[in-house]
Amino acid sequence: MALTVVGSIAFDSVRTPFGERDRMLGGSAVHFALAASFFTEVRVVGPVGEDFGAEEIAVLEDRGVETADIERVPGGETFFWRGHYEHDLNVAHTDDTQLNVFADFEPKLSDGSRAARTLFLGNIQPDLQRRVRAEATGASFAALDSMNLWIEIAKDALLAAIGEVDCVLLNDAELRMLTGEPNLIQAARSVIERGPRIVVAKRGEYGAALFTAEDTFAIPALPLEEVRDPTGAGDSFAGGFLGYLDGEGAGDPTPEQLRRAMVLGSVMASFNVEDFGTERVQRLQRPEIDARVGEFKALTHFEE
Amino acid sequence: MALTVVGSIAFDSVRTPFGERDRMLGGSAVHFALAASFFTEVRVVGPVGEDFGAEEIAVLEDRGVETADIERVPGGETFFWRGHYEHDLNVAHTDDTQLNVFADFEPKLSDGSRAARTLFLGNIQPDLQRRVRAEATGASFAALDSMNLWIEIAKDALLAAIGEVDCVLLNDAELRMLTGEPNLIQAARSVIERGPRIVVAKRGEYGAALFTAEDTFAIPALPLEEVRDPTGAGDSFAGGFLGYLDGEGAGDPTPEQLRRAMVLGSVMASFNVEDFGTERVQRLQRPEIDARVGEFKALTHFEE
Repeated sequence: MALTVVGSIAFDSVRTPFGERDRMLGGSAVHFALAASFFTEVRVVGPVGEDFGAEEIAVLEDRGVETADIERVPGGETFFWRGHYEHDLNVAHTDDTQLNVFADFEPKLSDGSRAARTLFLGNIQPDLQRRVRAEATGASFAALDSMNLWIEIAKDALLAAIGEVDCVLLNDAELRMLTGEPNLIQAARSVIERGPRIVVAKRGEYGAALFTAEDTFAIPALPLEEVRDPTGAGDSFAGGFLGYLDGEGAGDPTPEQLRRAMVLGSVMASFNVEDFGTERVQRLQRPEIDARVGEFKALTHFEE
Repeated sequence: MALTVVGSIAFDSVRTPFGERDRMLGGSAVHFALAASFFTEVRVVGPVGEDFGAEEIAVLEDRGVETADIERVPGGETFFWRGHYEHDLNVAHTDDTQLNVFADFEPKLSDGSRAARTLFLGNIQPDLQRRVRAEATGASFAALDSMNLWIEIAKDALLAAIGEVDCVLLNDAELRMLTGEPNLIQAARSVIERGPRIVVAKRGEYGAALFTAEDTFAIPALPLEEVRDPTGAGDSFAGGFLGYLDGEGAGDPTPEQLRRAMVLGSVMASFNVEDFGTERVQRLQRPEIDARVGEFKALTHFEE
């Protein structure tokens, strides 16, 4: 099994009430890949500049992530994001965005990345997502993420991209915005009618919900004593979710497999937020994942 | 077993994208009492005006609710609220509030209401909550609700009232505001340190979370095809939660009883929002409640 992720690789400068970090490793493809690497073989496709060094590559390779398709753009600088969070960590502010090499990103997939059984299209321009989907001929299962920007300025392209994947992961507000349906069930159904079999509504600190034609599942987020930096939580969720499904070899996942994937997505997101950037996931050990699955069971279980 | 609820009895005029109603029966004590009436004997303490008639009383009495302590104020008018909801039902607007007889409400408890084993202090001025708590000498278990207004203008009184009850039910934003703790676990712990053994964080369409010194439980709300009017959902939640506990005779409820109470609170809130005001709960049948408990199990269950 193998999973290819296409998306941003970034340096993030983040300030929260619990501290700050300057130019730490980030980006949707990075958070995704680290989370997924606990479950399957992962290949990252994305651009970096000359400021991206051996130290950053090593973070991915230490987790066994294949980095051959990370494209180093000569004379370029890596995507840079600076932001801060308020005392209420739900309130985020972007202070600076420098797209740099990400502005002209033209994904180039090696044979290995094309052949991967699962494809995750991170939040990039929807026409690029479509091109990558078409090129990844080995992928029998494809999923995408997006954002409000593309719903606003490239909705038709995004809807076309959605029509070509098996699974869509979006925030619940984005699902409502995309479909014009305030009711979440109806919003999910409207997406399913366009092609995808699986819709995941991410809800931040409230957890996530899963919709298919046959099943509805919802899981709260684990209340945590310490949340230091929410950056990348959604990408870590997607990494746990799709990494688990790929590792299971689930081309047509069963409802039970999808539910466990939702749990593992939630588990990976819960670790992500416990420290800045990738710090917590970098030092994560597999037994901690299994223990946290048990914590989610304890959090949600009741006898009828 | 018996449960006394003290709170508002109202006429509500509500408009949502799905219709509107003029001067329908509402108020926190009414929504609470109807929900709780499926599980135990309920007594309502609250004021109404001369505009409150036999038809409204009959809605409560048809569910077996004891209405002897509903005080009809001569020459008075019943509390009136007018509001509307946007296309996104999470966004509510108050268009008119006429406190009327509720402005000078001095709760008067009969011997029967004083003797009830469980007491719910609906959202009224915190000093009144304290007085009622002291008068309800039979109550071995007391819970309270409140709102942002009292946190702003009567925080010390509210904190004193909280110190005198066993259980606090608040929205998660109110819990954070009350304690100044953005982290929900720490906010709940801060409340528990003041006396209550049980803290319930209501989260609207995202469900609810329970915190005690020994246990944490969270339950998502049931995604519903049709949500017509969210007014009273939190009160219906509280009615299902406390009604179930009182019906179980749970003076010192076990973690498993508290978890089932959270489920039944969620069940009653889910019915509440399916139609305007009290309409859905008025026509609710007990087997529908049991079936919906099964739906919550199906929504949240996963195999480790």
